[in-house]
Amino acid sequence: MAKSIVLGFSGGLDTSFCVKYLHEDLGYDVHSVIVNTGGFSQEELEAIEKHAYYLGVKTHKTVDAVKGYYDRIIKYLVFGNVLKNNTYPLSVSAERLIQAIHIAEYAKELGAEAVAHGSTGAGNDQVRFDMVFDIELPGVKILTPIRDLSLTREQEIEFLKKKGVTDMNFEKNKYSINKGLWGTSVGGVQTLKSREFLPDEAWPTQITKTNPEEVKLTFEKGELVGINGQKYDHPTEAIQALQAIAGPFGIGRDIHIGDTIIGIKGRVGFEAAAPVIIIKAHHSLEKYVLTKWQLSLKDNLSSFYGNYLHEGQILDPVMRDIEAFFASSQNHVTGDVFVKLYPHYFQVEGIESKYDLMSAKFGAYGEVNKGWTGEDVRGFSKIFGNQLAIYKSVEEDAEK
Amino acid sequence: MAKSIVLGFSGGLDTSFCVKYLHEDLGYDVHSVIVNTGGFSQEELEAIEKHAYYLGVKTHKTVDAVKGYYDRIIKYLVFGNVLKNNTYPLSVSAERLIQAIHIAEYAKELGAEAVAHGSTGAGNDQVRFDMVFDIELPGVKILTPIRDLSLTREQEIEFLKKKGVTDMNFEKNKYSINKGLWGTSVGGVQTLKSREFLPDEAWPTQITKTNPEEVKLTFEKGELVGINGQKYDHPTEAIQALQAIAGPFGIGRDIHIGDTIIGIKGRVGFEAAAPVIIIKAHHSLEKYVLTKWQLSLKDNLSSFYGNYLHEGQILDPVMRDIEAFFASSQNHVTGDVFVKLYPHYFQVEGIESKYDLMSAKFGAYGEVNKGWTGEDVRGFSKIFGNQLAIYKSVEEDAEK
Amino acid sequence: MAKSIVLGFSGGLDTSFCVKYLHEDLGYDVHSVIVNTGGFSQEELEAIEKHAYYLGVKTHKTVDAVKGYYDRIIKYLVFGNVLKNNTYPLSVSAERLIQAIHIAEYAKELGAEAVAHGSTGAGNDQVRFDMVFDIELPGVKILTPIRDLSLTREQEIEFLKKKGVTDMNFEKNKYSINKGLWGTSVGGVQTLKSREFLPDEAWPTQITKTNPEEVKLTFEKGELVGINGQKYDHPTEAIQALQAIAGPFGIGRDIHIGDTIIGIKGRVGFEAAAPVIIIKAHHSLEKYVLTKWQLSLKDNLSSFYGNYLHEGQILDPVMRDIEAFFASSQNHVTGDVFVKLYPHYFQVEGIESKYDLMSAKFGAYGEVNKGWTGEDVRGFSKIFGNQLAIYKSVEEDAEK
Amino acid sequence: MAKSIVLGFSGGLDTSFCVKYLHEDLGYDVHSVIVNTGGFSQEELEAIEKHAYYLGVKTHKTVDAVKGYYDRIIKYLVFGNVLKNNTYPLSVSAERLIQAIHIAEYAKELGAEAVAHGSTGAGNDQVRFDMVFDIELPGVKILTPIRDLSLTREQEIEFLKKKGVTDMNFEKNKYSINKGLWGTSVGGVQTLKSREFLPDEAWPTQITKTNPEEVKLTFEKGELVGINGQKYDHPTEAIQALQAIAGPFGIGRDIHIGDTIIGIKGRVGFEAAAPVIIIKAHHSLEKYVLTKWQLSLKDNLSSFYGNYLHEGQILDPVMRDIEAFFASSQNHVTGDVFVKLYPHYFQVEGIESKYDLMSAKFGAYGEVNKGWTGEDVRGFSKIFGNQLAIYKSVEEDAEK
Repeated sequence: MAKSIVLGFSGGLDTSFCVKYLHEDLGYDVHSVIVNTGGFSQEELEAIEKHAYYLGVKTHKTVDAVKGYYDRIIKYLVFGNVLKNNTYPLSVSAERLIQAIHIAEYAKELGAEAVAHGSTGAGNDQVRFDMVFDIELPGVKILTPIRDLSLTREQEIEFLKKKGVTDMNFEKNKYSINKGLWGTSVGGVQTLKSREFLPDEAWPTQITKTNPEEVKLTFEKGELVGINGQKYDHPTEAIQALQAIAGPFGIGRDIHIGDTIIGIKGRVGFEAAAPVIIIKAHHSLEKYVLTKWQLSLKDNLSSFYGNYLHEGQILDPVMRDIEAFFASSQNHVTGDVFVKLYPHYFQVEGIESKYDLMSAKFGAYGEVNKGWTGEDVRGFSKIFGNQLAIYKSVEEDAEK
Repeated sequence: MAKSIVLGFSGGLDTSFCVKYLHEDLGYDVHSVIVNTGGFSQEELEAIEKHAYYLGVKTHKTVDAVKGYYDRIIKYLVFGNVLKNNTYPLSVSAERLIQAIHIAEYAKELGAEAVAHGSTGAGNDQVRFDMVFDIELPGVKILTPIRDLSLTREQEIEFLKKKGVTDMNFEKNKYSINKGLWGTSVGGVQTLKSREFLPDEAWPTQITKTNPEEVKLTFEKGELVGINGQKYDHPTEAIQALQAIAGPFGIGRDIHIGDTIIGIKGRVGFEAAAPVIIIKAHHSLEKYVLTKWQLSLKDNLSSFYGNYLHEGQILDPVMRDIEAFFASSQNHVTGDVFVKLYPHYFQVEGIESKYDLMSAKFGAYGEVNKGWTGEDVRGFSKIFGNQLAIYKSVEEDAEK
Repeated sequence: MAKSIVLGFSGGLDTSFCVKYLHEDLGYDVHSVIVNTGGFSQEELEAIEKHAYYLGVKTHKTVDAVKGYYDRIIKYLVFGNVLKNNTYPLSVSAERLIQAIHIAEYAKELGAEAVAHGSTGAGNDQVRFDMVFDIELPGVKILTPIRDLSLTREQEIEFLKKKGVTDMNFEKNKYSINKGLWGTSVGGVQTLKSREFLPDEAWPTQITKTNPEEVKLTFEKGELVGINGQKYDHPTEAIQALQAIAGPFGIGRDIHIGDTIIGIKGRVGFEAAAPVIIIKAHHSLEKYVLTKWQLSLKDNLSSFYGNYLHEGQILDPVMRDIEAFFASSQNHVTGDVFVKLYPHYFQVEGIESKYDLMSAKFGAYGEVNKGWTGEDVRGFSKIFGNQLAIYKSVEEDAEK
Repeated sequence: MAKSIVLGFSGGLDTSFCVKYLHEDLGYDVHSVIVNTGGFSQEELEAIEKHAYYLGVKTHKTVDAVKGYYDRIIKYLVFGNVLKNNTYPLSVSAERLIQAIHIAEYAKELGAEAVAHGSTGAGNDQVRFDMVFDIELPGVKILTPIRDLSLTREQEIEFLKKKGVTDMNFEKNKYSINKGLWGTSVGGVQTLKSREFLPDEAWPTQITKTNPEEVKLTFEKGELVGINGQKYDHPTEAIQALQAIAGPFGIGRDIHIGDTIIGIKGRVGFEAAAPVIIIKAHHSLEKYVLTKWQLSLKDNLSSFYGNYLHEGQILDPVMRDIEAFFASSQNHVTGDVFVKLYPHYFQVEGIESKYDLMSAKFGAYGEVNKGWTGEDVRGFSKIFGNQLAIYKSVEEDAEK
């Protein structure tokens, strides 16, 4: 009886090669699995399934991971206002982890002898898949044919053609695109070096809206639950609704430059209207309802959370601890945020929340206040600067 | 002989009141001083001096603090990419401190018995002035007539009119504006509450440019030294040159909402094209030339630095320690940053630096690399995830 | 009808003065309340009650806060291994807050017009009481006779004698002692300056044990539940049991020097055998069962938590957020810690835990391991140092 | 002509094996080098040199690295009060790095084709040597025979005997000892598991002092420059003098349990009287002379610094940035610290410093103060708690 292997499968060149190679050259029964994080339509998923069987998999499985992806990761990225390097919503980083976790679960369920991923030896994904599999599947062999054989695109195509694969598009796209609920990444010749920005044609979404629109985002305990007054059953639906409204403005495009897990710097374009608007709106609401130190400590933790997630360490229990902090901090993050959308940019205009600490009851900043006096502030200043007054006086005496 | 008092003087209603009140009601010889941080033209400064003498000051002094303001504060705000609450370049916060320090120095120089500032009891500035004076001028009395007498605008005007002051514009501006090298703040009825954004008419700079322009910013060890190939003698000149180019695009407008020193939330509009572009460009360059942990630790320190500066604590020696860290971190922050300006927004496009760690020598992210193998990464993944593999296995055994 | 005031009452000189002064001079009905955090015996509490009525209070109440004190504060001090400035278990700081909270609750319950505390103007406690009352009792007047009247000890005694108070010991103790569940503080002439240590006679506990003893501390999810195999109904009992065993060794004595809330440096002696042993034992257990980053992030948060608690900010919701992090982190902190007690010091010897990550299954540090190879580590080193290898090479090229 | 290899050589079994194997089996000219960090006497170094030539090295070199070790690393460990996991002075971690750096420099100087270290595949040292060599010696081959061949002790001995090595002690010590300026590590069967402490016989230093002694440590800008009034030319001499005084008390013994670089937990005993006393005395002095936030930020940075140094990342420029912060923070860390030594423990008693912020000029904690009033503190409390008062009131309204 043939040994079984579970293969993360996208239908692209690399994973198509893997099916043929693992099955025909290595003799495995290949069980392909695709984990949809919101980037594939029903039609696309069916085409991928058909293609898998065409290549010779024993079974093929489609996992709908969208809601779980939100509940397990995206929710906390919103709570933490996580933008890696202050820019990138971690669109791909987060997605790969949820995919790896589902693939590992499936391999465990099947009792597979091995598991495979199609990563090359040049990026972050290999580490994410390797690590999740090492942790979740002790004793299960990890095969990575593309990385292990150091294959070029041309070699893979030649191999597939030799094996009789003809019903497949071997043309290379000018831009490599990866789409999911939390954004779409875009790679091109420009992102391989430091100097150029991506040209207009690179972006998957065309800009079709030019008249500014105001949109109201409703949050409950930090979660996006409504858009323009319409409530949704699950935040993923609100995210998709917002994306439909804001995407055609070409909002949320940028290039992220950052540290890969393997120590080199890497650049990736992305288009993420909804994620970027949600994070900025959420953060803005927090500035009105959280205390000074809640804002400050959240910032430090979320910077770590984003970096560590990016590095594939989602399974470290410290991530659960940070999530507990985040969840606790969201008790008052309830209210409406008003955002104005323009072609290429947006403006958070203001908020309304019953937890707003800019309450009129206490007098506004710069206006006459209630509840304390100028004399109170004079005393405050005295004591708040007391240590430095002492410091300065001691220093002067010491250095006489 | 009359006691002497040094008064921070802007020529506005509050400090005009102070002159009259301190001199005529309290019998002080008033020595007014204005500290220019880049917001006043020569003509304005002369008009202010004339007005001071008109009101009856004994002497008036103008301090040109622009370069010192940069050297002592702004430089480090750039090094640290400091945007309070991820938004606000601290335009006013930083300025007040350099003003307070100069006023204190002047009071020391004159041997004044007292020092005065025109702050009300409702904002941050009172604490900043109080504290710097408490620290720098032990034993010198601090007078704050506006705060102490809890005066309204109308009461001040009435008082001045009674004292025969007629040659002065008592009309209230619809928007209160404060201008300096590092940005212009804008207050209005909208900023007193949480919901509204400032209308177009509120912004001091009119938008007169609509065609996109590319601008090249040249940094040396973290300091902006050139614009579009033109080198400047001092970074303040480069900042002003950039402001002249980018200001007419209406870039860098926003409302900051944050924690005041006195515990309430406060909102302030600002317009700061050059500061925001410089910080984003500088940060972008850093992402290419600094190591992962330099970026990460700088972030944490600069968040503290900005918050603490905002709270008026510039004199704490911990600020010198952070500045030493920042200065050390800028050794490689040398190169050009290319920014595209559009009406209302801008895009950092890319960089060129001899210290760029995205060096072609080592292979690009996502491409075939040099210097290490897929096998190396496999080992790395194994060890990088080792603790969690052990953790998971121990947990499973424990909970059997 | 007389206005009512709630007074935090300890029976000492300051609060005795307050009763007489508030009642007889200001005409209040005084409702005294003492909050026992573990420092008073039943006899002492009864004597204090008797004394209160002797002085003329309208009612007196004793609140047994020991268990609540643990549940609300001490538990988290253990979870966070909180030793302020790496030394002091915050014995008094924590206690004052729980007292202030209970006093405020009582004032609310009675609907009192005012609330009073006996703090002087020279320490931390005034701020703690002021702040909790300001926050919890808006509109309720806060009276602080000792601070407001700037009274000396002698003046207070004279006042009381004039009022006919004779049945009271007016002698000053050589050392001021404050005792609670989480330690005993000791002040003396030595702690007013920087040079001297407290002499043997200053410490309340006599050293009566000289033979080393081993003690086993059993933790469940971070809480001390057993001592030497004996399980307790509530951790407070385990703490008291440990104190009975370890106190007579004179363990946990030191002088804390730190920043007071009001900006001056302050020194206080303390004796806290059980708290110090528990924290060190708990931390030791954590080092075996938590991941690297759990340990690291806990450290940073607990440093903030301790400092902020010390400053009286227990009511900031950020403290709840940190507590949520702490609680989440304790899931595996279960096991036995073995400690050897000696006169004046102790040694954590080792631990036993089913969650111990030093599991024999994976090979020991420095021994042949299982689960990975030398080749894996070689790859790990390569990639772990990759960024610096690139950095160095780029730097050399740049500076040629 | 034979290829040349530089070998880090200690004279022990592993590196003796390496000489024979590299020379006779692989045909290298072996250039052995030993880097003394304070653990070897002149006699020992000469014996090691003799042994190297006996085994057949082409050349042998002794590097005296003691002062440079201090200047480059230990100084900053003192500035940062670095005790890993709040316990371990990083005795071995720091030493290995300075050794690796010297070996790399020597290999560069000789233009060697390869470099070798004798680490096994089970510990931290392999990563430290690998990484420093990868970074400093691009293109130079790294050989690690013990790790690569997975040799047991017995196999190494057998190999050496076959090669005719007889003049060498092959007996295994019951405890493995590593000695350097910054402490001595001790391994034994007890440190392989979690439960036991090291027995008395394991510790290299015998306890010969039983009468308490007071010792005065003099610091200048954070560096130890004198002991008991005697000034030294270099801090390394002061460290050695203190070790001579304090070592015989058996002070500074403990077991460190922590995270190795390779993800497993590891335990190591250590004996480090001088390092532990110096760090505690230095930290104590800092508590009197630094501001609150200097103490707090130093703590966070030094925790990172220690962990990252431990992981071998000394060459990351972020370490230079932290060192700049540390150096800046030491400006006032000048004065005397008085420490009482007892068998097994010590007590920091107090300090004297012209920079002491507990200056009598400002009134002591708990006593009548000068420079501010009770009213000032009342105002301070009001404002310091202002945000929470607002928070609470808003929350109550919202949840009505």
